[in-house]
Amino acid sequence: MLKGIPVSAGIAIAPIVRLSQDQPIAHETAISSADVSSHQSRLAQSIELARQQLEQLRVQTEEQLGAEKAAILSAHLAFLDDPAFTGEMNSAIENQLLSASAAVSQVADQFISLFESMDDAYMRERADDIRDVSRRLIRNLSGEESSVSFPEEPFILIAVDVTPSETLQLPLSHVRGIATVKGGSTSHAAILARSLGIPAVMGVGEALFTQMESETLLILDGATGQLYPAPDEETRKRYEAKAEEEAIERVAYEAMKDLPAKTLDGHRVHLMANMAVPEEADALVASGVEGIGLFRSEFLFMDRSTLPDEEEQFQAYKRVALAFGDKPVIIRTLDVGGDKHLPALALEKEENPFLGFRAIRISLARPELFQVQLRALLRASAFGRLLIMFPMISHLEQLRAAKSILEQAKSQLREEGVAFDENIAVGMMMEIPAACLQADAFAKEVQFFSIGTNDLVQYTLAVDRMNANIADLYSYYHPAVLRLISQVIEASHRAGIWTGLCGEMAGDPVATELLLGLGLDEFSGAASVMPKVKQRIRTTTIEQAKRTASHVLTLSTTEDVVAFLNNKAE
Amino acid sequence: MLKGIPVSAGIAIAPIVRLSQDQPIAHETAISSADVSSHQSRLAQSIELARQQLEQLRVQTEEQLGAEKAAILSAHLAFLDDPAFTGEMNSAIENQLLSASAAVSQVADQFISLFESMDDAYMRERADDIRDVSRRLIRNLSGEESSVSFPEEPFILIAVDVTPSETLQLPLSHVRGIATVKGGSTSHAAILARSLGIPAVMGVGEALFTQMESETLLILDGATGQLYPAPDEETRKRYEAKAEEEAIERVAYEAMKDLPAKTLDGHRVHLMANMAVPEEADALVASGVEGIGLFRSEFLFMDRSTLPDEEEQFQAYKRVALAFGDKPVIIRTLDVGGDKHLPALALEKEENPFLGFRAIRISLARPELFQVQLRALLRASAFGRLLIMFPMISHLEQLRAAKSILEQAKSQLREEGVAFDENIAVGMMMEIPAACLQADAFAKEVQFFSIGTNDLVQYTLAVDRMNANIADLYSYYHPAVLRLISQVIEASHRAGIWTGLCGEMAGDPVATELLLGLGLDEFSGAASVMPKVKQRIRTTTIEQAKRTASHVLTLSTTEDVVAFLNNKAE
Repeated sequence: MLKGIPVSAGIAIAPIVRLSQDQPIAHETAISSADVSSHQSRLAQSIELARQQLEQLRVQTEEQLGAEKAAILSAHLAFLDDPAFTGEMNSAIENQLLSASAAVSQVADQFISLFESMDDAYMRERADDIRDVSRRLIRNLSGEESSVSFPEEPFILIAVDVTPSETLQLPLSHVRGIATVKGGSTSHAAILARSLGIPAVMGVGEALFTQMESETLLILDGATGQLYPAPDEETRKRYEAKAEEEAIERVAYEAMKDLPAKTLDGHRVHLMANMAVPEEADALVASGVEGIGLFRSEFLFMDRSTLPDEEEQFQAYKRVALAFGDKPVIIRTLDVGGDKHLPALALEKEENPFLGFRAIRISLARPELFQVQLRALLRASAFGRLLIMFPMISHLEQLRAAKSILEQAKSQLREEGVAFDENIAVGMMMEIPAACLQADAFAKEVQFFSIGTNDLVQYTLAVDRMNANIADLYSYYHPAVLRLISQVIEASHRAGIWTGLCGEMAGDPVATELLLGLGLDEFSGAASVMPKVKQRIRTTTIEQAKRTASHVLTLSTTEDVVAFLNNKAE
Repeated sequence: MLKGIPVSAGIAIAPIVRLSQDQPIAHETAISSADVSSHQSRLAQSIELARQQLEQLRVQTEEQLGAEKAAILSAHLAFLDDPAFTGEMNSAIENQLLSASAAVSQVADQFISLFESMDDAYMRERADDIRDVSRRLIRNLSGEESSVSFPEEPFILIAVDVTPSETLQLPLSHVRGIATVKGGSTSHAAILARSLGIPAVMGVGEALFTQMESETLLILDGATGQLYPAPDEETRKRYEAKAEEEAIERVAYEAMKDLPAKTLDGHRVHLMANMAVPEEADALVASGVEGIGLFRSEFLFMDRSTLPDEEEQFQAYKRVALAFGDKPVIIRTLDVGGDKHLPALALEKEENPFLGFRAIRISLARPELFQVQLRALLRASAFGRLLIMFPMISHLEQLRAAKSILEQAKSQLREEGVAFDENIAVGMMMEIPAACLQADAFAKEVQFFSIGTNDLVQYTLAVDRMNANIADLYSYYHPAVLRLISQVIEASHRAGIWTGLCGEMAGDPVATELLLGLGLDEFSGAASVMPKVKQRIRTTTIEQAKRTASHVLTLSTTEDVVAFLNNKAE
C-alpha cells in the first residue's frame, strides 16, 4: 500500500496509464547559421499548432466545464500571441544560434523565474501558465504526441505532476483518478481535480513510479490518500462495494443539493464549506454549499518572500465575494505561526509554536500589516456578503484592540469615500479554552462565534495533534471538549448571536446529531463531506438530537461517547 | 545591572570579596626518585592538616548549624581516612614519580569520574565531596591560605562556584550574600545557602568577574537574581529601605512561625512548601511549613544516563518521609518531557514538547518503570505520611489506569510481606483544562486535587510561559483561569475532598485572599514566600475573602482583576 496526500475524494479502481516524461527534452541545442530560418519556421509551425490545440481545448472545456475553467486556456493562448514571448524565441535562434526547442526552453525559463520572483500571487501563477505553454511548444517541435493517447476504457493517470491544461485534456468519460509523485492539496491541478470530481492523491513520492508497471490495476482512495497497486481479491471486492455505496450516495446527495439543511421537525441550520484558495470558489458555489464558513486568508501570504499589498488582497477577497453573491463568506484574518510559516515576517523559531506567537497575536503586534488586511477586506465587502473573523483570541483586550483597528480602517475608508459594507459582521474563533470559558463576556462584543475544534482539542487536552506518540489522546469526543462546545453555544444564544463550527468535527457525520442537539447553528467542513452531514440532519428531529446531546453530556469518558454515538449512527 | 538565577531570597548590600581561583594549580608535576619520600611526607602533612581543619570546622558547624550540616564534613573526613584514596596518592608519587599535588590531582580525577559515572545519586554526590577534599589538600600542599581571609566586616562573596565546605566555612556573622559565575538552584551550595539564610544568586556568568573590582559595593537581590555593582545613591537608598522592611518582616514572620494559618474568624487552611531535592527536607521542616505540597520526584531521575532503581528511590523517599514525621508529603510521580529531558528514556525531540509525550503519558506507556516508582513510594510510606499525586492527567481513563498499576504494586508488596501505608492517599494535578472541566467526575476517584497553575495557565491561554514574545498574555489572573480554579475547588468540596494549589500563584500574597475566598484548602509555594501568605491569611476573615472572590469572578479582563487585587493589597 502506498500513501499520498488526499486531494480529491472518491474511490477509483482501474489500470494505470503513465503520462509521458513531464519535461520534454530539447534534443539539439546549438545550430549553424544556415539552419536559423528553418528553425524559425519550425517554431512558427509549432506555435500555430499549439494555438489550434489550445483553441480546440478551450471550446471543448467551455462546453463541458464552463467559461471559468476555459479561461485558463485563454491565458495560455494570450502568451502565444505575446511578441515579447515568441519574439524573444525567434531572436534567440538568430542571435545565439539555439535550436527552436532550446530557444523555447531558454526564454520560458527566463520568464518563469521573472514571474516567480514577483510577489503578486496573480503574477506568480502566470509562471505556471508559461511552464505549461512552453512544454506544449517543445512537445510539438519534437514531434511527440501532444499527450499520451488515452485508452478508450477506464484508467487512472499516473504522473510526476500534472499541469492544469493536462488535467483539462483528460477524457472525463474514461479517467477515473489521478495520482502524482509531487504536488499537494492547494495546487491548481488539485483544485481542478476536485471541481471536476476526479478522485486524486498527490505527493505520493517516487515510490509511485518505482512500484508500478504500466497497466497495473490500482485502487485509489482520494479521501484517505491510500493506493493499492495490484490488490488482492479481497481488497478489490471491499473497495468495489465501497465505490458502489458512494455512487448510490452521490445520487442521493445530488437530489438533496438544493434542499435546506432542515430536520424532520423543521429545525433549520446552515451548511457551509471551508476554503483555502479563491480558485476554489466556483466549484464550491456549484456544489450547493450555503456559503463559506472559513476562508483561510493565510494562503494569500504563504510561499512568498514579501507580503501581499492591499490591492492584491482586495482583488482576492473581491473575487470570492463576487463568486458567492449574497451567500455569506467568513474570512478569517491572518492565522500564521504555529505550523504555518511566513518568510516575510521572519518569525523566530519557537520551542512550542502551537503555544506561541501566532495569528491575532502577530496581527496586534504588527498593526500596520493588520490594517492593510482589514482595509482590503472592507473594500471587498462592497461586492458581496463578507464577514470578518479573528483567530486565536484568548483575552477580551485582544478582541477590543482588533475591533478598534477595524474601526480605524472604516474611518479611513469613509474619509477616502471608498465603499464598504457598513454592517459587516465581526466574529471570532473559539479555539482557546480561555475564550470558551468566558464565552458570555465575548458574546456581548461580537456578532458570531466559530468553534475551531482542531485547536481547541489541542489546548483543552494539552495534546499536539501532530504528535504520533499521543495520538490516542486526541479526540473531539472528549467530554471536556463537548462541555466547552455546549457552553459556547449556550452563551451565544443567551446573547442572541449564533455559533458555527469549522473544525473537522463539523464534517464528521457521527458528530452531526450531537452538534445539532447542542444547538449548533452552522457547520463548516470540507465540501465533499457536507452532503452526508446534510443527510443526517434531514433524517433526524431536533427533539431526538437534543436527547442525544443531553445523554452524551452525562458520559465521562471519550470511549463511552464514541461507543454511544457509533451505536446510534449504525 | 547583572542578572543570575535567584537561589536564596533576601537583600544584601556590602563590598565584595573574591574567593581565590577555585581550582588550585599543582605547580610541579614530575619529580626525581630522590624526592619521592619528601613528597610522600608532604602529602602526609597536608592530609593531617586537612584532618585538623575539617575536624575544627565540623565541631563549629555542629554547634552553630546542627548535626545534619556537620555530616557533610564527616564525609570529607572519612575520605581522608580511606586507604584506597590516600594510598593511591602515595603509590602515584612512588611509581609514577608525580609530585604530591599532581598525585592528589590525578587520583582525585580518577575517583571523581568513577563516582560521576555511577547512577546512584548518593554515589554521584560523593564526587562533589572528593572535589572538595582534594582542592583542600592541594591548597595545603601549595602553602596557600586554606581560604581567603575574610574581612571582619560585612561582605558579599564572589566566586566561580562554591563547594559545600567553602559555604560552611564562611563567617556567618559577616557574610551577607553569595554570587557565583556557575551553579543553579538545586546545587548543594544553593540548598545550603537557603538553609543558612544567606541571600544568593548563582549562574551569573563571566560578567560577574569582569565587571567588578575587589571591594566594589554590590547590591544583591536573592529573590529576583538582580545584582547592582557600584549602585547610584538612589538605587542604594531604595534597596536599603527594602532590606529594612524585610528585616522587620522577618521578625514578624519568625514570631508567627508556629501559629496556624487561620483567618481572624477562624477559617483554617494549610501552608505547605514545594521541594525539589530530598536534601532540602531539614531546612523546610525547620522553617515551619506544615508539610510538602509538591515533591518533584523527577530530580532523582535527571542528569544521569540510567534510571534510579527501586532501592535508590525508596531511600530518597524514605529520607523525606522520616524528615517530616507525621507532616504530609505529597510526592508527584515522574513528570518529565516538556522542558525536562531524561537521557535514559531517549525521548524524541518534539515539535511542541509542552503538548507532547510527558509525565503520566510516559508512565502509562512504560508501566514497568512506573511500577518501580510506585513500589518505592509505597515502601517509603511506612516511614512517614506520604501522599501520591499523578501529573498531567487529562482523561479519566488515565487516572484509572494509574490507580490500577498502583493496586498491582500494593498486591505485590502484600504478597512479599513488605510494609506500606494501606491508606495512602492518591491525588492528581489539575493542570490541564480538560481535567478541570471534568473535576466533578475526577473528584469521585481521588482523595485530593492539586491545581498546577503554571501549566494550567499555559494550556488555558495557549501561551508558552517561556516565550518572551507573548509574555504579556501569560497571567494566572486571567478570568478564565480563575473560573477553572473556582470550578475545581467547588467540585472537590461537593465530593468531600480537598484542593491544594502548587503553582507560583500559591506563594503570591496578592492572590492569597482571592484563593482563600474561592475555598482553597492548601497553599504550596517556595518556603521563603509562605510567611507572607500566612500573614495575609491571619489578617483577613473568610467572609471578607469570599466577598473578594465573588467580586473578582464578575470581572472580565486580567487587567481589571489585577487592578482590583492590587488596590486591596495596598
